[in-house]
Amino acid sequence: MKNYKLTLQYDGTKYSGWQKQGNTDNTIQGRVENVLVHMLADERHTDIKSIDMSEYEIHGSGRTDAGVHAYGQIANFKADTQKSLSDIQNYLNTYLPLDIRVTQISEAAPRFHSRLNACEKHYRYTIDNKEVSDVFMRKYMTRLKADYDINAMKKAAELLTGTHDFKSFCDNKRMKKSTVRTINKIDIKDTDGIITFDFYGDGFLYHMVRILTGTLIEIGTGKRKPDDIPEIIKSKSRADAGFTAPPQGLALVEVRY
Amino acid sequence: MKNYKLTLQYDGTKYSGWQKQGNTDNTIQGRVENVLVHMLADERHTDIKSIDMSEYEIHGSGRTDAGVHAYGQIANFKADTQKSLSDIQNYLNTYLPLDIRVTQISEAAPRFHSRLNACEKHYRYTIDNKEVSDVFMRKYMTRLKADYDINAMKKAAELLTGTHDFKSFCDNKRMKKSTVRTINKIDIKDTDGIITFDFYGDGFLYHMVRILTGTLIEIGTGKRKPDDIPEIIKSKSRADAGFTAPPQGLALVEVRY
Repeated sequence: MKNYKLTLQYDGTKYSGWQKQGNTDNTIQGRVENVLVHMLADERHTDIKSIDMSEYEIHGSGRTDAGVHAYGQIANFKADTQKSLSDIQNYLNTYLPLDIRVTQISEAAPRFHSRLNACEKHYRYTIDNKEVSDVFMRKYMTRLKADYDINAMKKAAELLTGTHDFKSFCDNKRMKKSTVRTINKIDIKDTDGIITFDFYGDGFLYHMVRILTGTLIEIGTGKRKPDDIPEIIKSKSRADAGFTAPPQGLALVEVRY
Repeated sequence: MKNYKLTLQYDGTKYSGWQKQGNTDNTIQGRVENVLVHMLADERHTDIKSIDMSEYEIHGSGRTDAGVHAYGQIANFKADTQKSLSDIQNYLNTYLPLDIRVTQISEAAPRFHSRLNACEKHYRYTIDNKEVSDVFMRKYMTRLKADYDINAMKKAAELLTGTHDFKSFCDNKRMKKSTVRTINKIDIKDTDGIITFDFYGDGFLYHMVRILTGTLIEIGTGKRKPDDIPEIIKSKSRADAGFTAPPQGLALVEVRY
C-alpha cells in the first residue's frame, strides 16, 4: 500500500463541505473517494461493491464548512494500485466535476497524515467593499459594504496573534479537547476595495476563522474596539465574540508541513 | 429627456445574450430595461404598464451572444427623470441580479449613440491550457488543452490585421450590409497556460471574434498554416474559415469613442 498526497482546489459553492456525511455524497471528500473507488475497481476488473471503501478513506488536512473554497486543500489516502502518479491524477480529474480539481499528486512517507502532520494552515477571508460589487468573483467574496477602519482591525489582529485559548471563537459548544491554538500572523489588506484577511496558524477551531473575521468586521465598523479583544479571549464565551462571517468569502489557501 | 451612458459588467453564463428577444426577458438588455421601466414608474407613481417601453429602449454598443461576458459593455438610453446619476446607478444595481452590474453612469451628449459612435471595440478570448483546469475562473475561459504554436498564431494574427472583407468570418449568411471591417491589432499571450487573444477593431461581424479565434486555434494546433489566411479571406466563404469557438471564453472588454 502506498500513501498518496493530493493537493485539491475546489469551489465550495455547491457542496456541503469537506467531510463526508453518511450516505449523502454532496461533500468534497465523498466525491473524491467515490471516484477513487471506481478507479480501483476498474483496475481490478471488479464491481465497486467489492471494494472496502473504509480502507480508502481520504484524510483531509481539515474540514472546510459548506460553501467554503480551497486553493490548496491537502489530503492523503492509502491504496494498492499499479497506476502512475499522473495516471491517478488524470483519472481523478477526468471523473471529478469541474469545480473540484487535483492540482498535484505525490507519494508521501508511509506515516504521513495530512491532518496530524500539518504545522501551519493559511486561510483567506475576502470582503468585497468596492463601489459596485464584482461580477466575476462574486461567489468567492462576501459583499459587505461599509466604511472600514483598517487600522483598528490591524490593531485587533495584533491582539489576536499568539497562543491563546480561543474558546470564545469556537462554535462547537461540546468541544472537549483543548481550545488553545496559536495564530502566527493575521495580514489585513485593502486593495481597491477588496479587503483580504490572511490568517496563519497551527490550527483553527470550528468556525474560528469566520468568527475571527466577524469580530474584526465589527471592530472595523466601529461596533467594537480593538481593546475589547483581550476581554473577549478571557471570557471564554462564544456570545462575547462577533458574528460568524458567511462561508462564501472563506478559502483554505495552503497547508504547510 | 436626458441621454444616459451606462458601463455594464456581466457574467453571460445564464443569459441568452445582450439583445432582447420578443417577450422573453432572459437577455441583458431585457433585464436592464425592465428595472429601468420600474424605476420610472416608481418615480411617477404610475403602473409600469403606463410606461411606453419602446421609448426607453437601451441601445448597446453591440450584441453579445448567449454565454458571452462583458467587462465594459456600453449602453445608452434617454429618459425623463429627476433622479441623480448615482441614484439611477444605485436603483439599477439594487434591482438587477448580481451577475449584471452598472459600473459607471454619466450624462452623454444628446446625440450620443453607443453603437453608432463606437470607434473601437476590444474583445478578449481566453483559453485555459493549464495542466489542470482552473476551478475559480472556469466559467470565463474555454478549456482546450493542446500544444499550441504561439508564434504561428501570432503570424496568422498579423495577416488578419488591417482592413479586409471578413465575409468568411461571419456566420450571418443573409448579411446584406458591408462585411468590410478593420482589425487594428490582435495580441496573443500565453501566461502560465492561460492563452489570451485580444482583438481590437472598429467593429465585428456576427460570430466574427469566435470564428477568428477558432481559425487561430486550428493554426496553433497545426491543422492549418498561417499562410492560409490570405486565401481564407479571399474566398469569402464561411466554410473556408475555422470553427466557431465556444461563447464562454469570450468577453467584451472595452468600447472606445
